Amino acid sequence: MINFASDNYSGVHPRIMQALAAANQGCACAYGDDTYTAEADTAFKALFGEDIVSYIMVNGTGANVLGLASIMKPYHAVVCSSMAHINVDETGAPENILGSKLLTVDSEDGKLTPKDVEQFLFAKGVVHHSQPKVISITQSTEYGAVYTPEEVKALGDFAREHDMYLHMDGARIANAAAALDVDVNVFTRDAGVDVLSFGGTKNGMMFGEAVIFFDKKLAEGFEYLRKQNLQLLSKMRYASCQFKELLCDGLWLELAKNSNAMAKRLADGLAEIPAITICNKVEANSVFAIIKPEYQEELHKQFAFYEWVEATHESRLVCSFDTTEQDVDSFIAAVKAVCA
Amino acid sequence: MINFASDNYSGVHPRIMQALAAANQGCACAYGDDTYTAEADTAFKALFGEDIVSYIMVNGTGANVLGLASIMKPYHAVVCSSMAHINVDETGAPENILGSKLLTVDSEDGKLTPKDVEQFLFAKGVVHHSQPKVISITQSTEYGAVYTPEEVKALGDFAREHDMYLHMDGARIANAAAALDVDVNVFTRDAGVDVLSFGGTKNGMMFGEAVIFFDKKLAEGFEYLRKQNLQLLSKMRYASCQFKELLCDGLWLELAKNSNAMAKRLADGLAEIPAITICNKVEANSVFAIIKPEYQEELHKQFAFYEWVEATHESRLVCSFDTTEQDVDSFIAAVKAVCA
Amino acid sequence: MINFASDNYSGVHPRIMQALAAANQGCACAYGDDTYTAEADTAFKALFGEDIVSYIMVNGTGANVLGLASIMKPYHAVVCSSMAHINVDETGAPENILGSKLLTVDSEDGKLTPKDVEQFLFAKGVVHHSQPKVISITQSTEYGAVYTPEEVKALGDFAREHDMYLHMDGARIANAAAALDVDVNVFTRDAGVDVLSFGGTKNGMMFGEAVIFFDKKLAEGFEYLRKQNLQLLSKMRYASCQFKELLCDGLWLELAKNSNAMAKRLADGLAEIPAITICNKVEANSVFAIIKPEYQEELHKQFAFYEWVEATHESRLVCSFDTTEQDVDSFIAAVKAVCA
Amino acid sequence: MINFASDNYSGVHPRIMQALAAANQGCACAYGDDTYTAEADTAFKALFGEDIVSYIMVNGTGANVLGLASIMKPYHAVVCSSMAHINVDETGAPENILGSKLLTVDSEDGKLTPKDVEQFLFAKGVVHHSQPKVISITQSTEYGAVYTPEEVKALGDFAREHDMYLHMDGARIANAAAALDVDVNVFTRDAGVDVLSFGGTKNGMMFGEAVIFFDKKLAEGFEYLRKQNLQLLSKMRYASCQFKELLCDGLWLELAKNSNAMAKRLADGLAEIPAITICNKVEANSVFAIIKPEYQEELHKQFAFYEWVEATHESRLVCSFDTTEQDVDSFIAAVKAVCA
Repeated sequence: MINFASDNYSGVHPRIMQALAAANQGCACAYGDDTYTAEADTAFKALFGEDIVSYIMVNGTGANVLGLASIMKPYHAVVCSSMAHINVDETGAPENILGSKLLTVDSEDGKLTPKDVEQFLFAKGVVHHSQPKVISITQSTEYGAVYTPEEVKALGDFAREHDMYLHMDGARIANAAAALDVDVNVFTRDAGVDVLSFGGTKNGMMFGEAVIFFDKKLAEGFEYLRKQNLQLLSKMRYASCQFKELLCDGLWLELAKNSNAMAKRLADGLAEIPAITICNKVEANSVFAIIKPEYQEELHKQFAFYEWVEATHESRLVCSFDTTEQDVDSFIAAVKAVCA
Repeated sequence: MINFASDNYSGVHPRIMQALAAANQGCACAYGDDTYTAEADTAFKALFGEDIVSYIMVNGTGANVLGLASIMKPYHAVVCSSMAHINVDETGAPENILGSKLLTVDSEDGKLTPKDVEQFLFAKGVVHHSQPKVISITQSTEYGAVYTPEEVKALGDFAREHDMYLHMDGARIANAAAALDVDVNVFTRDAGVDVLSFGGTKNGMMFGEAVIFFDKKLAEGFEYLRKQNLQLLSKMRYASCQFKELLCDGLWLELAKNSNAMAKRLADGLAEIPAITICNKVEANSVFAIIKPEYQEELHKQFAFYEWVEATHESRLVCSFDTTEQDVDSFIAAVKAVCA
Repeated sequence: MINFASDNYSGVHPRIMQALAAANQGCACAYGDDTYTAEADTAFKALFGEDIVSYIMVNGTGANVLGLASIMKPYHAVVCSSMAHINVDETGAPENILGSKLLTVDSEDGKLTPKDVEQFLFAKGVVHHSQPKVISITQSTEYGAVYTPEEVKALGDFAREHDMYLHMDGARIANAAAALDVDVNVFTRDAGVDVLSFGGTKNGMMFGEAVIFFDKKLAEGFEYLRKQNLQLLSKMRYASCQFKELLCDGLWLELAKNSNAMAKRLADGLAEIPAITICNKVEANSVFAIIKPEYQEELHKQFAFYEWVEATHESRLVCSFDTTEQDVDSFIAAVKAVCA
Repeated sequence: MINFASDNYSGVHPRIMQALAAANQGCACAYGDDTYTAEADTAFKALFGEDIVSYIMVNGTGANVLGLASIMKPYHAVVCSSMAHINVDETGAPENILGSKLLTVDSEDGKLTPKDVEQFLFAKGVVHHSQPKVISITQSTEYGAVYTPEEVKALGDFAREHDMYLHMDGARIANAAAALDVDVNVFTRDAGVDVLSFGGTKNGMMFGEAVIFFDKKLAEGFEYLRKQNLQLLSKMRYASCQFKELLCDGLWLELAKNSNAMAKRLADGLAEIPAITICNKVEANSVFAIIKPEYQEELHKQFAFYEWVEATHESRLVCSFDTTEQDVDSFIAAVKAVCA
C-alpha cells in the first residue's frame, strides 16, 4: 500500500530513529529536566531567537489548544477558518479545554484575511457575546495553501490594533517554510505571530510538537498548564532528541522540500489527465482532486487516500517526507490506467 | 550518575527499542487503526479476557484521569488516599478535567480500606455535597505497598454495595503482580476493579499507558473522550508495538521482578546500617528511608534520589527494570562509607 | 421612556408581586424543599403530564445550558440556528459549561429544518469530530417566528431516527403557545421535545425559568448539576411561588397574548408608513424593522429599542406583557412624525 | 414551626419587600444597566471606598466561586478550612468551575492561621503540584466563630508575602461586623482581603450576594465571567434595590445584631441545662450543641434545626434577623421540658 492518505501514515525518518537510539543511554532526569530537552530548546532559540521559550508537547491538538489556553480566558473567542484543524478535527478539544467559542469563516483555501475577522468585532465590549481575542491561522493550511509573509503580517497588525493575539497552527510549518523559501521568522515572529505550534510528527518524527512563545510573558505558568492538561511526557528526552535532530542541520526543511516537490509532481501529472480535476492551488504537500468513485475504488487497491468531500468526490492526496518519485509516478500511471 | 530517583529516569528496554525499529516499516493507518494496535489489544485480551476493551494512552495522568472521566460526572467525587498520584502529582488534572472533588484519606502505606471510604457515605443523596462515586486505589502504592487480592476485593465489594466503582491506578501494576506472584486478574477484574490504568512507561517503555475497561459499557464514547482530552497519538503504532512487546511473553513481569528484587536487596543492605531507618514495608520497587542531610549531600554526588519528606529527611529510593545488583551494592557501600 | 427594547426591561406583573408578598410568611425549607416548589411542580405536571419532572432555575442561560448538559457529554455537539440565544447571547456559556461545540446553521427566521441538521451527520462515528447529539430550537425564535407543531415534530422525528435529542429554548414559549393557540403539549412533548426551557422572566416574572424533562431518565442527577453550576436558589420559595401564580389559571397565556397582540398592532401600524420596512413575519411579540439612523435618534428620546443589524439599520421592537395600545400608538405616531 | 435550621429558612425583611415593590415601577434597563444597580454600587462604595468595584450575583456559591475564578488559573489551588462552605456545601462547584484543587485544613472553629497555610508552600514551583495561590476564609465561620481583625491581617500579610491572594466568604459578614463592632473595613480591605463575597440572602434579602474587589485590576473581565457562568440576572434591578435598602442606613448591621443577640441568648439559656453540651464559642449567630436523639425527636415537633454531626448528635441552631426572644425562650423551655 502506497500512502497518500496522510503525513501521519508515514513512519519515522531513519535519522530520528538513530537519535532515539542514541538517547537511550543511561538514566536522565524526567519531565524535561534533561540535556536533550535543553538542546532542543537551544535549537529552537537558534531558529527563532534567544528570547523565545519553547515547550515540547505530545501531539498537535495539545500544542494548539494549550498554546491558545495560555493567551485566552474562557469568555474569549478564537476567530479561525471553518476548515481549521482546531474547528473540525479536534473533537471539540478547544471548546472543552478552553471553554471558549470558535468564530469561523468560510474560505476557499482555508486562509483568513483581516476583513474576515472584522465582522466579529461588533461583539467587543458587549457582555452577552464571547469576546474575540485570538486569530488562529494554519500555515500551511488544511487545503494546501501557504500564507505569504505579507498576508500573515496583515493579520498580525490587525490583531495588535484590536487588542488581539495571532496564533499559528504550524503542524505543517516546515512545508510552508520550504514553499516560501524564506527564513521561518519572516512569516512568524516578524509578521506578528504571538504563539506558534511547531509541528514535528507530520514531518518525520515519531511523536512530539512544540509550542513557541515569542513573548515570554505569554507563557507564564505554561509548564503547569501543560502538566494539568495531560501533555507532559515523563521520559521527555525521547521527544526532545527528535526535535534536536530535526532542527540541527536543516533536516526539517529538507524533508518538507521533498513532500512539497512530490505534491507538485503529483499535481503536474494529474493535471494532464482529462478525467481528473485538481481543486486547489498546490503550494505545499497536499493535492485536492475530484476522482470519480469508480476510479477511487480501483485506486484504493494500491493507494491509501481519503475522499475529502463526499458530495463532490473531491479527494485529498498528501505527500510526505518519505514519498518517492516512484510512488507518485505509479499513482499517476494507475490513474491513467483506470481512466482509460 | 546511578538512578534511584524514579523509574521514569530509566531508559527504554532494548527489546522495546527493537520493537520500535521493527514497527518503522512502511506506512500504517494513523490514530490506532493499524495492526500494531490490534495486536496490543489482543495481548491485553489474552491477559484479561476477551470481553475487555483496551485503549492506549500517552501518559499516566491521561490514563488515570480519563479512565475516571468515563465513569463519573462532575458532581461525583473520587475517594482516594491523600498520597495518591491523582491527588498530589497531577497538578490538579483530575479536578480540572473531571470537574470533580477528590475526597482523601490519610493512610500509612497509601492503601485504602472500606472503613476509610465509609466516612464519606453520609454525603450520598444530599444535594449540597459531591457524591462519592469512585474509589481509586494505586497498585502498588506510592509508598511501595501492595494490596492483597483480598484487600482489593473488599473494596470492590464495598463499591458494588454502595453503587460506586473501583478504579485502579496501575502505573506500577507489574510490580504488584510480580510481588504477589498471582495471575493479574486475581487482584483486578476478579476483585471487582472496573477500570484499570495499566502502566508501561515506568516498566521499560518509552511512553504509553493503557486503560482497561472490564465492562465495555463503561467505555462508551471513550475514543472521543481520549481525543478531546489530548491523549490520542497520531502515529499510534509506535505506542502499541511497545505494549505488544512488553506483554507478549511475560517481559512486563520479568522487568518488574528485577525492580522488586533490587529494592529488596537495597532494603536488606540498608537495614544493616544503624544510621539508616527504613520507613516502609518494602513490597514492590521502592524503599523509603531516613537519610541525614549531610549523608544525602555526599551520596548525591554519585546517586540520584529524592528527599520525600523534608521535615524528617525521609528519602525515596526507586529501583527500575535496569537497576543492577552492582548499582545497589555500590549505593549500600557508599552509605556505609558516609556513615562511617 | 416607553419600552420596546426587551421583555426584560419590563417590570413584574402585579399578581406576581402579590404572590411574592403572600409567600413571605414565616419560615420555609430552603433549596426547594418547600410547599411553593411542590405547588409549582404540580402546576407544571397539570400542564405537561404527571410523568414529567420540573426544575426551577435562576435564569434563561442557566436553564438552557444545564438542560443541555443533562443530555450531552462534552464530545457531543448541539446543532442550532446561528442566531440562537445559546449561540450569540450567552457569552459562550454553552461551550464553557458543556465543553461542547455548537454547530450552527444560518436561517432567515431563526428556524431549523431536518435538512439543516442533516449536513452534520457525516461526522457521526468519526473520532476526530464532535458528535452531533442534540438539536436545539428556540420557540418562538429570536426573530419572532413560531414553529408549527408539524415543524417541531419533523425535527423530533429526525432526532429520534438519528439517536439525537430535541431541546427547546422556550424563553418565549408563552408567546408561541399564544400565537399557535393550541395546547402547549402539541408542539412540545407530543412533537418529540425531550428537554424544555420554560420561560418566566420575559413573561412578567421577577426572575426564574424552569427546565422540564419529559423523560425522567434524562434528568438523572440534575439536582446536583443545578447546584454545582450555580443555579440553585436558597430561598427557592420566592421563585416557585411566581411560577405557581403564572401557571395557575392561564395568566402565562393571557400575558403572552397581550405581548403578541401589541406586536401585531405595532407591525400593522408601521406597515402603513412608507419609510419603514418590516423585515420579519410577525408571529410572536417582536417586530424587526429598518429605521433610518436619523429617525432612530429622534425616536430614542421617548422610546427604548435596539438596532439589531448595524449595517442595515434593522431595529428590534419587542412588546411585553405590560405594553399598552397607547404605547404602541404613540410609537406609531412618533414614527409618522419623524418621517414626515 | 420555629426556625433554628438556617438563616435561609427565614423570609424577607419587610423593608426589603417594600424596596422590591418600589422598584417595580415602569421599565428599566436589563442586566444591571439601571439606576438601582448604580445606587447599590454607590452604597458599596460608601461602605468600602470609592476605588472598589462591586458585582451583584445571584447566590453565595456563585459569589464565592466566581470571585475566586477571577484571581486564579485552574492549576492554582485554594487553601481553606475543611469545613469551609466552598469545600463541603457547594457540590464541588469550585472544582468544576475553577478546575482547581482545594487544599484543606482541619480546624476546631473553622478558622485558618498562617501556620495552617504554610504546610502547603512546599508545592510552590513544583510542576507536578497545584500551586497554592489563594487563601479563602469564611467570616463569620461555618462554626459560628469570628476572625479578629488581627487574625485576618496575619493571613493577609502572609498572602502578600507569598504571592497569594486572600479571599473572604462573607455570606455572614454582617454577623461578623456586628460581633466585632468595628468598621467593616478593619477586617476586610485594611486587613488585606483582596476579594469579598458580601452576603445578602442570609441577612433578610430574597436573593442576591455581591462580590467586592478592593483592587479593580483583579476584576478585569469579571462581567463576562459572571454572564458566562450563569450568574447574571436579566431584571437586575430587583437584586440591586435590595442591597441598596440593606446598606443605606445600617439595616444590614441591625439585622445581624438581632441574629447574634438571639444566638447569645440561646446559648446562655442552654448552658444552664445540664443535659446539653454547647460545643462552640458563640460569637456570631450559630450555636452548636449536643442534643440526645430522643430529645431531638421531641423538639423537632415544634422547632426546625439540623443534626450537624451524626456520630456525636451535635446539632446546629441558627438565629436569623427574624428570630425573636420568644422563639428562643420557647426553645429553651422546650429543651428543659424534654430533659426533665
